[in-house]
Amino acid sequence: MRQRPPNPDFETDVRASFARQKVMEAIGAEIARVAPGEVAIEMPFREDLTQQDGFLHAGVLAAILDSSCGYAAMTLVPAGSRVLTVEFKASFLAPARGERFEARATVKKAGRTLTTSQADAYAVAEGRETLVATMLATIMTLPASSG
Amino acid sequence: MRQRPPNPDFETDVRASFARQKVMEAIGAEIARVAPGEVAIEMPFREDLTQQDGFLHAGVLAAILDSSCGYAAMTLVPAGSRVLTVEFKASFLAPARGERFEARATVKKAGRTLTTSQADAYAVAEGRETLVATMLATIMTLPASSG
Amino acid sequence: MRQRPPNPDFETDVRASFARQKVMEAIGAEIARVAPGEVAIEMPFREDLTQQDGFLHAGVLAAILDSSCGYAAMTLVPAGSRVLTVEFKASFLAPARGERFEARATVKKAGRTLTTSQADAYAVAEGRETLVATMLATIMTLPASSG
Amino acid sequence: MRQRPPNPDFETDVRASFARQKVMEAIGAEIARVAPGEVAIEMPFREDLTQQDGFLHAGVLAAILDSSCGYAAMTLVPAGSRVLTVEFKASFLAPARGERFEARATVKKAGRTLTTSQADAYAVAEGRETLVATMLATIMTLPASSG
Repeated sequence: MRQRPPNPDFETDVRASFARQKVMEAIGAEIARVAPGEVAIEMPFREDLTQQDGFLHAGVLAAILDSSCGYAAMTLVPAGSRVLTVEFKASFLAPARGERFEARATVKKAGRTLTTSQADAYAVAEGRETLVATMLATIMTLPASSG
Repeated sequence: MRQRPPNPDFETDVRASFARQKVMEAIGAEIARVAPGEVAIEMPFREDLTQQDGFLHAGVLAAILDSSCGYAAMTLVPAGSRVLTVEFKASFLAPARGERFEARATVKKAGRTLTTSQADAYAVAEGRETLVATMLATIMTLPASSG
Repeated sequence: MRQRPPNPDFETDVRASFARQKVMEAIGAEIARVAPGEVAIEMPFREDLTQQDGFLHAGVLAAILDSSCGYAAMTLVPAGSRVLTVEFKASFLAPARGERFEARATVKKAGRTLTTSQADAYAVAEGRETLVATMLATIMTLPASSG
Repeated sequence: MRQRPPNPDFETDVRASFARQKVMEAIGAEIARVAPGEVAIEMPFREDLTQQDGFLHAGVLAAILDSSCGYAAMTLVPAGSRVLTVEFKASFLAPARGERFEARATVKKAGRTLTTSQADAYAVAEGRETLVATMLATIMTLPASSG
């Protein structure tokens, strides 16, 4: 879905909000791309974030998928509006092993109050990408005046 | 759902597997309870795991909800079997602020290959609990022989 | 979750709205129960609504689960407000065979704009109930003034 | 995802199974397209399948989305295998009004036991398409020998 962002400073505002998500720094995640209706977040493999078999834990994948969905939505909201996650559903398609991971989100439908984003997570190893998870998320926009 | 665990050592095995989930140590999460078809996981509030408004990030809640769902399923599988998350859906019902958080999972239906677990996450502050999120998850059982 | 309905005529209004859902008549569904934060809908088995193996189709179960979730939410909204489904997730736990089916929904969290409902669907055969599906749904409230 | 179907008769087998889904005939749905990893199902608007505002009921959309996801998965399974829906999540993006509706599913990941499909539903009116819903579904494959 292509849409013109109502906030000309959308990229600056998304990056500023992301910088306030302390958990992203804690897991080593960074924004890889911001465009109208699209945000990508990447992180390295980290052994301290694994599950019992040595793969990245599903909750960590969910964290970068969720943030990418929320910020993709935020690229299309009016200046000053805040976004929050109402719900998400994630399917885990392959073991999350690799050197690094990237979550790429796209807005499927942007509404005044609710936006639906879709995101895929890839594991990258030796230059090859494997789809490891996919998410569908509902994001709510809170107008600037709501404090 | 009440069911007799086929593995008499289910609690020992669940706790051993949980101890191998390095991400749980990284976020300060611990098992609070293990019973047939039920597992609870708790963690303190941690400022380094917050999102942009200072609440616990949805991905961190998803991590303890997911692990509680997976281990609730594991209490009912044969000895030596492994479990992995196929998918989950989480709804976020209130801001995740509080002193500590607890995810409580229950098995809704245990099947030979697939188990469906349900979990609620509570924030605890000044002795009062608030429901902050809920999850429905599908867990797959891999027989011991599958390596 | 227990909550006092702000609309004293909630039951009348829910039943009136249900009566306008023509698909419910088409599939033979009826309201079995209306209470604050709770609605149950039942329907008989119908061979013309089956999937390839002769069980009730997942979409038909989703229809009664969805309507029960939406109307459970509607019991707790102000008079004149409308409700609509934002999204739902359903897990299918056992083949939907039986003489009749009942979907029972409960509100997990009622908010001003969004309500989260949970519902279970049971198949009834020879007086025994089997849990065949479960749903988690997000319902949006549109204020009366929104037309 | 492109993949070579292991069953050379996948199209014949998908159409034969669809023909046994009596609910599809009941709602007037037909297969519009079958290709490796892809199935589309279409149906006309039907006033007897509406919800309280006169739009197609979410459960009816879920029915064609679910069947499209399941049959997209079936195009990639070995001959004789059966498929069944484990779970699905659907988001409703716009009111389901139009002359006809089409659900288009694609396999995101085909595994030996589980397949994840994604589907979008469009309303068609005066030659214009509107995205009205999207689904993510998990489909299980049962080998021929399992009866």
